[in-house]
Amino acid sequence: MQIAIPLYERFTALDAVGPYEVLSRLPGAEVIFVAAQRGPVRTDTKMLAMTADATFDEVRAPDVLMLPGGFGTRPLLTDEAMLDWVRGAHEASEWTTSVCTGSLLLAAAGLLDGLEATTHWAAAGELEALGARYVERRVVEQGRIVTGAGVSAGIDMALTLAARIAGDDIAQAIQLYMEYDPQPPFDSGSPAKAPESVLAIAPSAARGRG
Amino acid sequence: MQIAIPLYERFTALDAVGPYEVLSRLPGAEVIFVAAQRGPVRTDTKMLAMTADATFDEVRAPDVLMLPGGFGTRPLLTDEAMLDWVRGAHEASEWTTSVCTGSLLLAAAGLLDGLEATTHWAAAGELEALGARYVERRVVEQGRIVTGAGVSAGIDMALTLAARIAGDDIAQAIQLYMEYDPQPPFDSGSPAKAPESVLAIAPSAARGRG
Repeated sequence: MQIAIPLYERFTALDAVGPYEVLSRLPGAEVIFVAAQRGPVRTDTKMLAMTADATFDEVRAPDVLMLPGGFGTRPLLTDEAMLDWVRGAHEASEWTTSVCTGSLLLAAAGLLDGLEATTHWAAAGELEALGARYVERRVVEQGRIVTGAGVSAGIDMALTLAARIAGDDIAQAIQLYMEYDPQPPFDSGSPAKAPESVLAIAPSAARGRG
Repeated sequence: MQIAIPLYERFTALDAVGPYEVLSRLPGAEVIFVAAQRGPVRTDTKMLAMTADATFDEVRAPDVLMLPGGFGTRPLLTDEAMLDWVRGAHEASEWTTSVCTGSLLLAAAGLLDGLEATTHWAAAGELEALGARYVERRVVEQGRIVTGAGVSAGIDMALTLAARIAGDDIAQAIQLYMEYDPQPPFDSGSPAKAPESVLAIAPSAARGRG
């Protein structure tokens, strides 16, 4: 089972690595990172580069497509070559998925027209403007399209997907191996939960992301 | 504030990327990935490479040291050059931290003698054999040494550390930005919680990790 994760300049690392860490442990899985060119691709912070091991041309029909987010998605929303690749991959795929603003790419490719989907909370308006119906949930399933909310939600999205693909026991075994028994020191992971003082400074935590 | 994250062949990606995603958003933070040589370093699955942008020689006195885990830690437990580097970095650092089996390196370097620490649940015995006192907690603080449990626990560890470094409001703003409002589809993230059927197949989910 080939799982393709595209990398674009200014992607958000955890958007890609959360699902990679889950999905790479599925029996028979091969995760392949793809980009316009092979080689290192810088994240939104510029402090990290991850390697694309294949080009878009080389991976046209993955079994699973997983689009990460980050500000790097924005220039691609009008990049017809990229959107054509997404449409082609979706035609071939069993599952088409995204994390964070990766869903904007699905929407721009016309794959979310009138469908429910999620994205980073700060990008809900952008998603709706592209024709999807934003739902304030962490994971949204619409047939074989599964979207996850912001950044860390990719772990929950991928575990949900792992269960669909390989059954609950294997998904839970992966969760156990990753020791995903979350105990955040604070409860401020959504705008509904964060205190006013935190909402006021949230934009400064973005540091060029989104 | 320089935050050094060493990469070694067969590290676990999420161990490194969870804390990177949190700590890179601290005001004034510069996260630098370091290795024996500059260039790509492969993870435990071989399906992903991340770039080391500096060598150990070039980064000897980081403000924060953050050691990821993975099976790649094991050969290093008797690598005196590596352990010397860890000891030197710890002498200079304000905070010395680890995720998963990264704490085995701290212990092998003699930095956890008699101290409480945590690691991946499957490595508790190894940690104790190296002189630390294993504690079954997600984040363990002992002065300026902070250890996290397996893989995904690095996010909780790093948010805890972010609060110590920059205060609760900034840590919470980072949590909000990462939308870290975890909602795992299952509750099997620790051996105490996972059902028997899942414990039985957990080793197969490791696929060369640890």
